Amino acid sequence: MRTLDSNLEEKRAAGEAAADLVRDGMVIGLGTGSTVAWTIRRIGEMVDWDEDEGIDILGVPTSYQAQELAISCGVPLTTLEQHPVLDLAIDGADQIDRNLVAIKGGGGAHAREKVVSYSARWFVIVADASKRAEVLDRPVPLEVLPIAASLVERLVKKMGGVPKIRQAKMKDGPVITDNGNLVVDVDFGIIEDPRGLASELSALPGVLEHGIFDNVDQLVLGPGKVIDRR
Amino acid sequence: MRTLDSNLEEKRAAGEAAADLVRDGMVIGLGTGSTVAWTIRRIGEMVDWDEDEGIDILGVPTSYQAQELAISCGVPLTTLEQHPVLDLAIDGADQIDRNLVAIKGGGGAHAREKVVSYSARWFVIVADASKRAEVLDRPVPLEVLPIAASLVERLVKKMGGVPKIRQAKMKDGPVITDNGNLVVDVDFGIIEDPRGLASELSALPGVLEHGIFDNVDQLVLGPGKVIDRR
Repeated sequence: MRTLDSNLEEKRAAGEAAADLVRDGMVIGLGTGSTVAWTIRRIGEMVDWDEDEGIDILGVPTSYQAQELAISCGVPLTTLEQHPVLDLAIDGADQIDRNLVAIKGGGGAHAREKVVSYSARWFVIVADASKRAEVLDRPVPLEVLPIAASLVERLVKKMGGVPKIRQAKMKDGPVITDNGNLVVDVDFGIIEDPRGLASELSALPGVLEHGIFDNVDQLVLGPGKVIDRR
Repeated sequence: MRTLDSNLEEKRAAGEAAADLVRDGMVIGLGTGSTVAWTIRRIGEMVDWDEDEGIDILGVPTSYQAQELAISCGVPLTTLEQHPVLDLAIDGADQIDRNLVAIKGGGGAHAREKVVSYSARWFVIVADASKRAEVLDRPVPLEVLPIAASLVERLVKKMGGVPKIRQAKMKDGPVITDNGNLVVDVDFGIIEDPRGLASELSALPGVLEHGIFDNVDQLVLGPGKVIDRR
């Protein structure tokens, strides 16, 4: 039986294993979530602080959360404006299928996460085994302009989805993203054709970004447990 | 020879002709620009202010400019939040081809314009003859998250486009949209397949909305000069 503790150990193993991809001189996108947090901590241990040992790298955080963790772990940071091309990006996922198509956006930061991942030459997802699925079936988060919320709800219903505007927990009303938009989580049930769905969702007016990621190069599940995109 | 005056007359004729589509009780999307301004003025004349004559309508402006003009012309306004489904939307275009595919976004408001137009049961473009083209060849405006500007420039260059971040005239630096984003104008030369291009542009990370509109139901060029979508 899988226990909470074994799940935590899996996350840690996956996160730390991904840090093995880091090389001296790299600029690296740093993702958000409990698994990639272990990657950031491990990178912090590898970094050169006394100019004798360790490696020189720069990180580009995908969120406030990633930024604060990186700072506390001693990982030096930069921005996409200064380093528009990244050597590597490492992030978590809500769910990932056998073709390495992922759903992200549980944290509401998937627009920035997508920009960072597409800016990287190599995009790695770290995940424990519970995130793997034969076929994707998690709700797909959409970041939506507030004025477009009603239109997007109508249009995704026509596509067979069940939309729900994500509500905040520590403020009244809806979640507001870092870009000032709403998050609409759309349940499509089993997603037979995630690439086709991604293309339809991209075309919806007022949708800044959807949570389907079709640019994953590699999945790291733990030491030696690595799956490359076919 | 077409003169400036005859062009102004054409804009006025087109704009006023579109007001003939307005019926009592409608909720109407009000577009932005010098041609649709004549529609708004004409609607203002048709509106019921003394409760004896005229029609009752409500307008949803696509921009601050449209809002201010509508208020000054006595057109009562509402919002997409209150009236998510519009009976009619009327807007201008930078260029429109024989299949009624249009390029919009010269005013940097095309994200809101697109949401309003897709919220309407019937979407009408008003234009003078100078906006018509056999094939689209105007630069396509993209509204882009500031952090994604560099990535989007790289990706549209790969697609054969020449991108240019739109610079402001009455402030230093770039134009900032009403949503806090940048506008990247991308010159693709002659656009052979605007629908294919629209789909590619929609899929770019960090692009909120592109200026290709493929949902035009009718083009109004003047009184009796009306082209329906085939």
